[in-house]
Amino acid sequence: MFETAELHRSLPKATYEKLLPELRSNLLRVQNELYQQKKFPVIVIIGGVDGAGKGETVNTLHEWMDPRYLETHAFGPLSDEERERPDFWRFWRTLPPKGKLAIFFGSWYTRPLLERVYGKTPHAEFEEALHRINAFELALAADGALILKFWFHLAKKDQKKRLKSLEKDPDKRWRVSPEEWKHFKLYGKFYKVCAQALRVTSTGQAPWTVVEGYDAPYRYTTVGQHILEQIDKRLQPQTTSVSPPAAPPSDTALRLRYPTILETLDLSQQLDKSTYDQEMAALQGRLHVLARHATLKQVSSLLVFEGWDAAGKGGAIRRVTRALDARFYCIMPIAAPTDEEKAHHYLWRFWRHLPRAGRVTIFDRSWYGRVLVERVEGFASEAEWMRAYPEMNDFEAQLVEHGMVVLKFWLHISKDEQLQRFKEREATSYKQYKITAEDYRNRERWEDYETAVNDMVERTSTEYAPWHLIEANNKYYARVKIVQTFCQSLEKRLKG
Amino acid sequence: MFETAELHRSLPKATYEKLLPELRSNLLRVQNELYQQKKFPVIVIIGGVDGAGKGETVNTLHEWMDPRYLETHAFGPLSDEERERPDFWRFWRTLPPKGKLAIFFGSWYTRPLLERVYGKTPHAEFEEALHRINAFELALAADGALILKFWFHLAKKDQKKRLKSLEKDPDKRWRVSPEEWKHFKLYGKFYKVCAQALRVTSTGQAPWTVVEGYDAPYRYTTVGQHILEQIDKRLQPQTTSVSPPAAPPSDTALRLRYPTILETLDLSQQLDKSTYDQEMAALQGRLHVLARHATLKQVSSLLVFEGWDAAGKGGAIRRVTRALDARFYCIMPIAAPTDEEKAHHYLWRFWRHLPRAGRVTIFDRSWYGRVLVERVEGFASEAEWMRAYPEMNDFEAQLVEHGMVVLKFWLHISKDEQLQRFKEREATSYKQYKITAEDYRNRERWEDYETAVNDMVERTSTEYAPWHLIEANNKYYARVKIVQTFCQSLEKRLKG
Repeated sequence: MFETAELHRSLPKATYEKLLPELRSNLLRVQNELYQQKKFPVIVIIGGVDGAGKGETVNTLHEWMDPRYLETHAFGPLSDEERERPDFWRFWRTLPPKGKLAIFFGSWYTRPLLERVYGKTPHAEFEEALHRINAFELALAADGALILKFWFHLAKKDQKKRLKSLEKDPDKRWRVSPEEWKHFKLYGKFYKVCAQALRVTSTGQAPWTVVEGYDAPYRYTTVGQHILEQIDKRLQPQTTSVSPPAAPPSDTALRLRYPTILETLDLSQQLDKSTYDQEMAALQGRLHVLARHATLKQVSSLLVFEGWDAAGKGGAIRRVTRALDARFYCIMPIAAPTDEEKAHHYLWRFWRHLPRAGRVTIFDRSWYGRVLVERVEGFASEAEWMRAYPEMNDFEAQLVEHGMVVLKFWLHISKDEQLQRFKEREATSYKQYKITAEDYRNRERWEDYETAVNDMVERTSTEYAPWHLIEANNKYYARVKIVQTFCQSLEKRLKG
Repeated sequence: MFETAELHRSLPKATYEKLLPELRSNLLRVQNELYQQKKFPVIVIIGGVDGAGKGETVNTLHEWMDPRYLETHAFGPLSDEERERPDFWRFWRTLPPKGKLAIFFGSWYTRPLLERVYGKTPHAEFEEALHRINAFELALAADGALILKFWFHLAKKDQKKRLKSLEKDPDKRWRVSPEEWKHFKLYGKFYKVCAQALRVTSTGQAPWTVVEGYDAPYRYTTVGQHILEQIDKRLQPQTTSVSPPAAPPSDTALRLRYPTILETLDLSQQLDKSTYDQEMAALQGRLHVLARHATLKQVSSLLVFEGWDAAGKGGAIRRVTRALDARFYCIMPIAAPTDEEKAHHYLWRFWRHLPRAGRVTIFDRSWYGRVLVERVEGFASEAEWMRAYPEMNDFEAQLVEHGMVVLKFWLHISKDEQLQRFKEREATSYKQYKITAEDYRNRERWEDYETAVNDMVERTSTEYAPWHLIEANNKYYARVKIVQTFCQSLEKRLKG
């Protein structure tokens, strides 16, 4: 959930200053249009870890935007007026009217999160609080409200660094109280509780945007730009038809490229053939025993393979299946849906093929097509792929609760490596059929796919079914890591 | 929740046979259109108490409809195939494709309900199961599915009678097993658990329709007609604009009037002036003491008055407030919303005016306007008023959880009594201002309002905030009953 916000994304000061005038004038423009049209209110929620720059971001937004149509609400201890009413009263009274934007710095999330972290509420009560929040936001969204939720995140060591540097600065020392350090000590607990909260409350109508708090210009522009784009989009006359996304503006300063989670992978990982042969043989032996054991214990497994064209999914799958008994596994290659599948909800075709007890099912591409190719190519509308994230999380939760081992692999290669593999395939007679013009066309959308993968990891890498990102420029390295991961997961599950 | 399904609604056999041909041919027509268009699937869920005619209704639907586009799924004990997958697998595999209709006789509700009634799952787990059901149905509805949920209900004594009569009939005896009698003994427990389930899962996209199981022709036509209307509506090109509902078809046999919950009230209740004076004086004294006690204990109260024009809301409110300390109560008359209120969610204006601790707030008309006047006059779209029911239930749940006493009164008078009161008002100089042409216009919609009131009671009379229906043809009787109800509720709350 937070992996994508530990990338040290940053924006050089010069670029920041260059794009600022355009961003600011655009924000003022949409604010004014919003106010003139008075069609819907905008609710901006700012949450996240201490020291990630939440307060500074709110102040910056105030500097940039028109104060007449903007209000910020912070929530301290309950006033007696508030204590005498139900919890949500303080929030209802501060909701913005149509045409205005309100920033909630601290919100309906704060109290349930803190009480859960401090162990004051049991798990079930926490879940109930999250469902109540969903009902609240659904009611507002159904009424037309645009809800933008930002979660500021920092890696643990970055948070520590930041708190220390604030303490050293005489002007900023006041920002760090003993409470911040107390929270820091509970970092792991916060991480877990917040990840769950974000997963449950990232709905189609009110999704979270995770913002990395590492660099100030980055976080300001990310939040500002997202607010701008979302209001702008909503102000346009609504069309319900599905059309491919417009090509990105050619040369606007606002279209910045930031590193995605994929760029954190070290693609220079190597493994030579002889080490590979040795390790793979050992791993397959180990997997074979584990798989037999799993069959006996009626534990089933479900493996998902996603990745770039020519990233080596097929080869990796074969290395897994070689260790398995053919009676107990099946491979589901996912191509275009059949007529019958098209006549159902997109998850239906995957539910059909769930493994029986003790079996292994391997999906070569999967339901994630919805938020990858269907998103990038415009086959699904934004509303459709946005609501797919929580649907897929809930789907996988049901598998894991049932006792299944669920493993999701993304095989990552560089763009250059892909080109080389395409060429090799074209030169090999029995591999030529694998390469079509479409494969080359897909390369043109490389950056869009990177963004889609990043969002997918941000929204669907859960504690119970995390994404395993595999460095696959070296096939040997990738295959070993995959079989190893499967072995480890089975071992853990069989012990448990 | 089930009050409206204990009215002994029935349909004379002659009428039934007269309207049957039209209903059947229309059902075949929409089934065929549905299949031709292949735009969405229809999911019909049949649930409810034993002996309420669920099975016979399903059989009747099969007789009426085209078997090519209709399938029925019943769910017995899990097969081993099913046991080896997550719970929802058996439901996913039976979902109908676009263009077809599937009846689920028993469904994803059965197991959570039974396990809760038999105490096998704790409350929190039951709540989680209901939320998962909502997520499931939301995913299907978002994908276009039309979900129609019917809950068959029988009053306890009617269920007993029905089971006994089945047992006596040699042809039907097989329908009554020891299990039915076991369930009957748990009637109260079932009632409570099912009411909660229906409340939580009656969402805007997939609301429940409660069907009284007392009379066979009634339940067959009610279900058949609802299926017909909903498919028909969905097959029409969607318009999003809000327009007043079309006038009901003038002389179609399908537009039948059934008694509503209001017709169960005995409007002949009388109370003479001297008894009234005596009783009211005693009650006001009692209320005064209780209210002071409540103020000391910081218990607040919220009273909602709804009812027909001239039903005596104002007079009843004055009898309540006379017993209260003017510093601690306030009356909120709800007229058309202000500009500011219009710029917010419709519940915002009510959240604003929640009482502080120890105070009493009286709403003269309320949020229920959304599902009464706004529904009947077409000021709110069907989607808007449909989603208002769960929103209002959630709103009131928050008030009650906070410790507030919540009382909702509907003041009922007959149409004749209303006319007489209008005329009396016109003849009284200081009351003339109370009567306008609009009051007469509203009388023309009397039957639509009756339906709206009936639906409101069905969907918002909860265990924690039930509707109190007040027989108000005799003002004295009505006032006494209201003040008495307030006293009793306060007493109960202050003891608790």
